[in-house]
Amino acid sequence: MPLGNINRKQANNEVFKRLCTANPVLVNVLPAGQIVPGLTKNTILTSGPPMSWKHYRGGQRNAILGTALFEGLATSPEDAALKISSGKLKIGGCHDYKCVGSLAGVYSASMPVFVVENDVHGNKAFCNLYEGTNPRRLNYGVYDEGVKKRLTFVNDIVGPVVGEAVRQAGGIPLKPLMQRALHMGDELHSRSTAASLLFTRELFPHLINQMDINPSEVKQTLNALTEDHYFFLRLSMAASKATADFAHGIEKSSVVSAMAFNCQGFAIRVSGLGDTWFKGPHASVEAKLFQGHSEEEITWMGGESTITETIGLGGFAQACSFALQKYQGGSAQNMIKLNKELYKITIGENPDYHIPVLDYRGTPTGIDIFSVCETGILPVMDIGIAGKDGGQIGAGLVRAPMECFVKAREAYQATYH
Amino acid sequence: MPLGNINRKQANNEVFKRLCTANPVLVNVLPAGQIVPGLTKNTILTSGPPMSWKHYRGGQRNAILGTALFEGLATSPEDAALKISSGKLKIGGCHDYKCVGSLAGVYSASMPVFVVENDVHGNKAFCNLYEGTNPRRLNYGVYDEGVKKRLTFVNDIVGPVVGEAVRQAGGIPLKPLMQRALHMGDELHSRSTAASLLFTRELFPHLINQMDINPSEVKQTLNALTEDHYFFLRLSMAASKATADFAHGIEKSSVVSAMAFNCQGFAIRVSGLGDTWFKGPHASVEAKLFQGHSEEEITWMGGESTITETIGLGGFAQACSFALQKYQGGSAQNMIKLNKELYKITIGENPDYHIPVLDYRGTPTGIDIFSVCETGILPVMDIGIAGKDGGQIGAGLVRAPMECFVKAREAYQATYH
Repeated sequence: MPLGNINRKQANNEVFKRLCTANPVLVNVLPAGQIVPGLTKNTILTSGPPMSWKHYRGGQRNAILGTALFEGLATSPEDAALKISSGKLKIGGCHDYKCVGSLAGVYSASMPVFVVENDVHGNKAFCNLYEGTNPRRLNYGVYDEGVKKRLTFVNDIVGPVVGEAVRQAGGIPLKPLMQRALHMGDELHSRSTAASLLFTRELFPHLINQMDINPSEVKQTLNALTEDHYFFLRLSMAASKATADFAHGIEKSSVVSAMAFNCQGFAIRVSGLGDTWFKGPHASVEAKLFQGHSEEEITWMGGESTITETIGLGGFAQACSFALQKYQGGSAQNMIKLNKELYKITIGENPDYHIPVLDYRGTPTGIDIFSVCETGILPVMDIGIAGKDGGQIGAGLVRAPMECFVKAREAYQATYH
Repeated sequence: MPLGNINRKQANNEVFKRLCTANPVLVNVLPAGQIVPGLTKNTILTSGPPMSWKHYRGGQRNAILGTALFEGLATSPEDAALKISSGKLKIGGCHDYKCVGSLAGVYSASMPVFVVENDVHGNKAFCNLYEGTNPRRLNYGVYDEGVKKRLTFVNDIVGPVVGEAVRQAGGIPLKPLMQRALHMGDELHSRSTAASLLFTRELFPHLINQMDINPSEVKQTLNALTEDHYFFLRLSMAASKATADFAHGIEKSSVVSAMAFNCQGFAIRVSGLGDTWFKGPHASVEAKLFQGHSEEEITWMGGESTITETIGLGGFAQACSFALQKYQGGSAQNMIKLNKELYKITIGENPDYHIPVLDYRGTPTGIDIFSVCETGILPVMDIGIAGKDGGQIGAGLVRAPMECFVKAREAYQATYH
């Protein structure tokens, strides 16, 4: 039908259809510089709407400076800051490079990324790899010898071994693993325990085939894949980005196609409103902090793992994942209540991602900015909590701020009426 | 305290403590004839209270005859039947050999068994290995060339390879895997998806160490471990048997220490009442049948996997496992309701096995025959359903018959008053 005849509802149905039919397949693992378009040796990516350098602060600033050091682009944090201010080093927003960042979300050319292709459309998305169990990580604003050692391990061992296994496998479709993981207690944002095991199970035969070449590296990689609950998160993020990008850019659609933090606030993009970020403040958070930490320490250093909520996972599938109570607090009944509410602000129920406790109802999928404004119900997101001194100090629930949705609705009305 | 001073409540508390503190560790995999005390070359074990040969019928009879053929103890089913009637071949009840049988539950000397040791007491329990995905299996009353081939594969490849990995690992504690699996959608009777993956993950480093000797066998074993959801069930059963046996034989206790079917009916044992089986009829079943099968086909051929319910798993943890709706029918709300009711007939809440949707309440553990009689609430069990022509045709919920509990209470009163 001619574009002019499409109304908002039809456009949103098209976006919903794309969110549901995208088929993300992990096709490779390669250093970012070799595969991410535009990511040059002098580029550092970070989470959220890009800002001028002076606005990056705290953990996000430290993460960017640490990345410059890790990549050998500067000799000291001061040197890195100078090179960034002078334009010798370039800061980019992950989303503009088909990437998606966890917390500070820093990327540089040497870091391996998952290459995920939506095979019904061919669009690719990228996410770099989980650093490991130490709460002191580069993406939580820390850079020291321990972080450097671990990042080097990821670059030199985990990335290449997993990449070889993925290529041997001829690609690994992620949707079946994600679908199954939702029946096994994951919501695929703050909990990816089952998905990490299911993914490892897919890799087993191809890891075994590498044993004669490098047995020690295979064993170390196996450990990295399953030593805790989070390895799959970056795959869930890349799969979600490949899905959301497929649904972005549909004229007249009022459905959210990205949600992201930087250290200054929260922002959303809308499918029918181009690449504009609609910005708001940080939202209040209900968190459970790790032993020995207090609320005063909570700080914001960015985050784009909320791409999972954008496609109907994470907080939108929290009733799949009652074990999250141990990690982020709350009660099972409240998780069910919060999850059910989200049907009021979404276009439809995902035909592939189901919630067993709701008798297999599909997850609420496709956040409509009009419905958010009209109902006052804000998207709920499961997130990791960073501390002022760097590192992860807890996890919890956060709600997107209303300002983003109100601004986006104004822009929509200005654009289409 | 002197035995004479212990009352029923104290005895039941001791049983509950043992059910909760048992620590089952998989220490080996060996042919049954090498490790199960009393299991001679001419012995065949089967599920439920032992009966004289003429009472075995249908699938359970066929499974026993098939076992004789597989073991090379007879040349035809008729020859096997003659040898059994004449006493040349001996039929034993699994439970009397520290074994526990799935469905018909047939064991013979060549079949590998998991050797599980309760390391706080040293008592051992055994269970043979899962045959594989084909619904036509020896323990479902079928014996043909396909079944023989698969059993030979389990004897020659899966058993030895897993055994070597377990010995290399120095034993694998099962409780931590089971505890975690309950947070990942398993109830460890009809669903062991997560536990099978967690177990495989534990074995993996010790499987890859065998790659230089027999790569093809390792790959086939890896596949057998993860090709479907059920591999871990036999480990869950052996762990439950090691746990229940530790709690059996406590004077004055009225807690159930085993529940089992044979083809003629259901029966229970009680901790304080020795090795007597208290028998009842078969119970009605609420089942979901696989496509193409009908209720008229449902048949009973034994089953002792209800040892899992005896220690607070399976039907007693069904609210962990909403994904079971797809397999055995029912609704999530009903699963929660049924699970909660069982607290009224059990001694306490398991401190290690938790139900996330009930805000981590411990599973109802230790079935008291007096509470069953007083409340009229019967134990709920998740079971696989066999068809008249052999093979699995579905799965569902079943309730133990009241007769067993009434008879056991009478015996208790006669013994202790």
